Amino acid sequence: MKLKIILPVITDVFNEAVKREMESYAFEETKIDVVHLDKGTASIEGFYDEVLAGPDILDKTRQAEVEGYDGVIIDCFGDPAVKAAREFVDIPVLGGFESAIHLAMILGQRFSIITVLPNVLPLIQDLITLTGTGHKYASTRFINMPVLDLHDTNTMKKALLQEMVQAIEKDGAHVLVLGCTGMMGLAGELHQELEKKGYDAPVIDPAAAAMKIMESLVSLKLRHSRLTYMRPREKERKI
Amino acid sequence: MKLKIILPVITDVFNEAVKREMESYAFEETKIDVVHLDKGTASIEGFYDEVLAGPDILDKTRQAEVEGYDGVIIDCFGDPAVKAAREFVDIPVLGGFESAIHLAMILGQRFSIITVLPNVLPLIQDLITLTGTGHKYASTRFINMPVLDLHDTNTMKKALLQEMVQAIEKDGAHVLVLGCTGMMGLAGELHQELEKKGYDAPVIDPAAAAMKIMESLVSLKLRHSRLTYMRPREKERKI
Amino acid sequence: MKLKIILPVITDVFNEAVKREMESYAFEETKIDVVHLDKGTASIEGFYDEVLAGPDILDKTRQAEVEGYDGVIIDCFGDPAVKAAREFVDIPVLGGFESAIHLAMILGQRFSIITVLPNVLPLIQDLITLTGTGHKYASTRFINMPVLDLHDTNTMKKALLQEMVQAIEKDGAHVLVLGCTGMMGLAGELHQELEKKGYDAPVIDPAAAAMKIMESLVSLKLRHSRLTYMRPREKERKI
Amino acid sequence: MKLKIILPVITDVFNEAVKREMESYAFEETKIDVVHLDKGTASIEGFYDEVLAGPDILDKTRQAEVEGYDGVIIDCFGDPAVKAAREFVDIPVLGGFESAIHLAMILGQRFSIITVLPNVLPLIQDLITLTGTGHKYASTRFINMPVLDLHDTNTMKKALLQEMVQAIEKDGAHVLVLGCTGMMGLAGELHQELEKKGYDAPVIDPAAAAMKIMESLVSLKLRHSRLTYMRPREKERKI
Amino acid sequence: MKLKIILPVITDVFNEAVKREMESYAFEETKIDVVHLDKGTASIEGFYDEVLAGPDILDKTRQAEVEGYDGVIIDCFGDPAVKAAREFVDIPVLGGFESAIHLAMILGQRFSIITVLPNVLPLIQDLITLTGTGHKYASTRFINMPVLDLHDTNTMKKALLQEMVQAIEKDGAHVLVLGCTGMMGLAGELHQELEKKGYDAPVIDPAAAAMKIMESLVSLKLRHSRLTYMRPREKERKI
Amino acid sequence: MKLKIILPVITDVFNEAVKREMESYAFEETKIDVVHLDKGTASIEGFYDEVLAGPDILDKTRQAEVEGYDGVIIDCFGDPAVKAAREFVDIPVLGGFESAIHLAMILGQRFSIITVLPNVLPLIQDLITLTGTGHKYASTRFINMPVLDLHDTNTMKKALLQEMVQAIEKDGAHVLVLGCTGMMGLAGELHQELEKKGYDAPVIDPAAAAMKIMESLVSLKLRHSRLTYMRPREKERKI
Repeated sequence: MKLKIILPVITDVFNEAVKREMESYAFEETKIDVVHLDKGTASIEGFYDEVLAGPDILDKTRQAEVEGYDGVIIDCFGDPAVKAAREFVDIPVLGGFESAIHLAMILGQRFSIITVLPNVLPLIQDLITLTGTGHKYASTRFINMPVLDLHDTNTMKKALLQEMVQAIEKDGAHVLVLGCTGMMGLAGELHQELEKKGYDAPVIDPAAAAMKIMESLVSLKLRHSRLTYMRPREKERKI
Repeated sequence: MKLKIILPVITDVFNEAVKREMESYAFEETKIDVVHLDKGTASIEGFYDEVLAGPDILDKTRQAEVEGYDGVIIDCFGDPAVKAAREFVDIPVLGGFESAIHLAMILGQRFSIITVLPNVLPLIQDLITLTGTGHKYASTRFINMPVLDLHDTNTMKKALLQEMVQAIEKDGAHVLVLGCTGMMGLAGELHQELEKKGYDAPVIDPAAAAMKIMESLVSLKLRHSRLTYMRPREKERKI
Repeated sequence: MKLKIILPVITDVFNEAVKREMESYAFEETKIDVVHLDKGTASIEGFYDEVLAGPDILDKTRQAEVEGYDGVIIDCFGDPAVKAAREFVDIPVLGGFESAIHLAMILGQRFSIITVLPNVLPLIQDLITLTGTGHKYASTRFINMPVLDLHDTNTMKKALLQEMVQAIEKDGAHVLVLGCTGMMGLAGELHQELEKKGYDAPVIDPAAAAMKIMESLVSLKLRHSRLTYMRPREKERKI
Repeated sequence: MKLKIILPVITDVFNEAVKREMESYAFEETKIDVVHLDKGTASIEGFYDEVLAGPDILDKTRQAEVEGYDGVIIDCFGDPAVKAAREFVDIPVLGGFESAIHLAMILGQRFSIITVLPNVLPLIQDLITLTGTGHKYASTRFINMPVLDLHDTNTMKKALLQEMVQAIEKDGAHVLVLGCTGMMGLAGELHQELEKKGYDAPVIDPAAAAMKIMESLVSLKLRHSRLTYMRPREKERKI
Repeated sequence: MKLKIILPVITDVFNEAVKREMESYAFEETKIDVVHLDKGTASIEGFYDEVLAGPDILDKTRQAEVEGYDGVIIDCFGDPAVKAAREFVDIPVLGGFESAIHLAMILGQRFSIITVLPNVLPLIQDLITLTGTGHKYASTRFINMPVLDLHDTNTMKKALLQEMVQAIEKDGAHVLVLGCTGMMGLAGELHQELEKKGYDAPVIDPAAAAMKIMESLVSLKLRHSRLTYMRPREKERKI
Repeated sequence: MKLKIILPVITDVFNEAVKREMESYAFEETKIDVVHLDKGTASIEGFYDEVLAGPDILDKTRQAEVEGYDGVIIDCFGDPAVKAAREFVDIPVLGGFESAIHLAMILGQRFSIITVLPNVLPLIQDLITLTGTGHKYASTRFINMPVLDLHDTNTMKKALLQEMVQAIEKDGAHVLVLGCTGMMGLAGELHQELEKKGYDAPVIDPAAAAMKIMESLVSLKLRHSRLTYMRPREKERKI
């Protein structure tokens, strides 16, 4: 299968790393291409950024369908424009949140999310409410690092581990979800660090989760319901 | 007070009617201006249309703040870009849904929404979930008329009345909410028709509701919490 | 419009202050009269007090309708006898809780209530459950001052500010609701104090909220649904 | 043990029948006395009637405690003034709703209530919301007979059976709850009639349920929590 | 009436004590017999133990029905195999959880459970979710003593009291539920100790609760709905 | 990877078909073995059957871990003994329900389940409650065929299609879930039949869903949290 990853930011500096990362999660037969946005923002850290990125995400999604991709992953924890994109195309579309959170539901009694900044908490709270996962929700914590600072892997990793331990000890979390797709390639290592501290709790990477759920959907020929996501009617549009 | 109404569609044909309508709901001291979008779609009938209208709604909202308006109403039942706009400005921002639904909560045990097309049902369902109003939700019904056909007032009124009666008799609705801000100026008349049939149930017009809640907020100097809607951080943006 | 405020306590010492306060919130064209109870209790601080005040609240509400008032506000946070009164009259009836809480729903992600005594917590919890607002509920805190001591404005203000800061810092509140209509005229000042401490969170006064929602309802000719609040059947009654 | 039944209506015509009925449910060692109200209404069929009955229910409850009764049953499905009474006395107080509904929770997946008139539906809906039993709630149906007509046992029984069958076949009910304490002595017979029709579904009589739960509480020396139901503070009261 | 208590563990050391304890809760006319399992585990402390105990619980329940018992209590807080047993027999079957939790619902605003080990928390959380009692749930705390160590009554009592005080002070509990049927005969004493500390909060013993609810059901000739718990169809079974 | 499928029934007649079916869903590198039970029942159609199958499911799961399998699928829609098995082993364990339902959550607004018999409805309702998926739940319908009759593929397919159309038209379903793992190999065909009727709604096969989610978990080295599913303590066990 052939999947398109849309990085919903206006820079190509992450493209290569994301491609490598996504390939590391994929089954061998899966082919992956990555594209970034022409219009939008440098990073997504709230409702405002999501709205600005929206139209070009739709454009890139439609392009992926035209090019014959089997599915589209919008590589962002906040699932920006995911539902709109599903109205627009006939191939499955996934973001990071839904994918990660439904795996979290399966793996334990209570989950915490560790994200970047307090700005995204209301957005995450809305996604929890919409997915109906509040009954297993322990907390959202943040490491107070903007997305564009996440290249400082050591600081990020240390901060994540610290907040994860707090989530377990203070909030009663049993499952940890990385709350930003920029926190790439750390889930396994963080799980090991937690285990060393006596906490054998899974750590879910939202990009990895999206990749596997997407492979599952494509492989089973499943796609969003067209009774929910109806095709937009023809009408005048200016963008 | 001075309020700006943003009509989130790329046509000015409704501007005059909406201004008149809104003035009819407002207190005498309220001044109202209406603006439409430069970019977006001819009408909003799903997630896809909302995403396309988003960036220009934010632009027009910011402009209203700069021009010294006391509040902004995004004149659409689906509350498009309302939360993003709140991050961006310091004046209150309201759409039709939240305003109408919270009045509905107060007026009776169970409410139904009568909207335009099946396409918008998932969007409305999400808003019900997000506002936590599902415990009083009876149903959403639709009259199967696109927004741009609503100028045919007689057909619309007849269809609305018919669905309202069904909502009461089959779904157990006690309060009716008009599910599109294009259904202007009919609430009072529809209430009277229902009363004639023995159903003394309030009919809520979402534009009217937004106008009154906005006047209430401005008058009480209330505004969205900046702990929820944090100001977007400075970063590169291309639109 | 002409509104009647029912102070559900057996003393007239608050009448003047409440009238002035309510007029400060009202639009110019709104006329306000205040009445207190002949039977009931000196203050309402629990289920027991509410029950004792009930019959005379109904009586005073009915009288207001007969006198031609356009709406009745029962000036108490606990909404005593509000639903019963709606069965009894054809003009809108509001208390403080519903009015304040639905504005709080609109203004932010999570709200806290600051009330007088621990005695009223179960009553407030019931109202949160009944209005379905628990998904945004952070906490109820109390200042441990009986209603009849609230005339000591300085002590009250200091205690309120302290509990509000705790609500924000410990309970994650983004919106604050004053949990007693006796906490008059402080919302604006408290908001400013919070802002000075870096917390730009709205403070909602329940009496002010009731006044604006009531003006909205009357202005839109909206009233409770008679499908929910049916007129009491004729039968023998001894009071 | 010695229990006081408060019939919250201003007539003594039911006292004898209720005493006999209650004794038929009680264990042998339980002694039962019945008292009716001096002030209130002839029957309780809505919020309004409940409010009018409230003060005298409190008075009669307090009197029962003074007289040395071990518990008080307020013999009405709507649990009028039950929470207020718990603040006022140190002996357990129960109404019909809570008692019946918690037995219903134990006996099957989904329950329906069959009550007297549409007027009481909002009151019942509130009790379902407050007890958190909505997840097992199928429907409330009514036989359209005022409480004071229930002496026509045959008509009532026939109507109840008909609505119960509808509740099972149309609403998916597995457990039936009689929604008025005036529907005395019929539960067993109705269960048998349902069984004949192939529906082996329990029928719960709220007065019987209250009697057994009360005996359980008294026998286990259990009583409402004084952390929830705090004693009313001393203050001026005029009744 | 004649009740069978099934102790779902493979030892008879508790049989005598449980019989005495249960008799102390029962009305005089109730006859009680106790039986333990032949297959299963020495104590139930998680999902795993429950599954192992399941088949023999069903066997012993069926045997009780054949022997003419009027009801069966599975004497364990986790309600193991209770729903399966209801499919299998026509007499009422109760465990400790459902019985205790529905009394807790009636007695106050918020309850905490004090149990033995962290292992059982997910099991208890599932039962709370299934019974829909989460809206009144404050916390589950544990004393970190395995079931088989509970014979050390003094240590257990001290630890229970300590956790109960924490539940009240830190978690806001108003009602306390003993989270293991092995915590026999302590509820009254613990209530007195709490009262001495100023906390007049009921303490519910799950075995006692099951006994009284069972007596109530048998006395009212109530039993689980056969529309929920259908009789298992004939088919091959090997055990 | 190497997966063990446990067919929780005491017959080997399905083993071959299930192996072929599961291999058709799996990625090429996945190796699959199927085992059935020695003790239990011929099919699982209720709580009772689940309890009888429990101990041997645990035994077979443990054996799979000892033999070096990477994951275990308990091939039944009701997820029998899944949580108990997770306590017992360190490899991921999945049943059909959780796997199917979380994919359904992602694919549309409302789902219906089409199952075999009315007997399993309460069991399914419990699973919906436990997974917190009730907010998207439309209905459970059944085809009234026992599991052991499902070899009559044509009758089953026709009945499934009919109930699916009803679920869409009457219950508002947008996503369909096959409610028995015995309904093998039909999802694709049923989806096509629905599409022909104008309903482009996904059909989810629970066995297929379990296979893909399991491959995802194993591939990402994810496993249930040991903070939720703690290892059973050593103690005496007799089976």
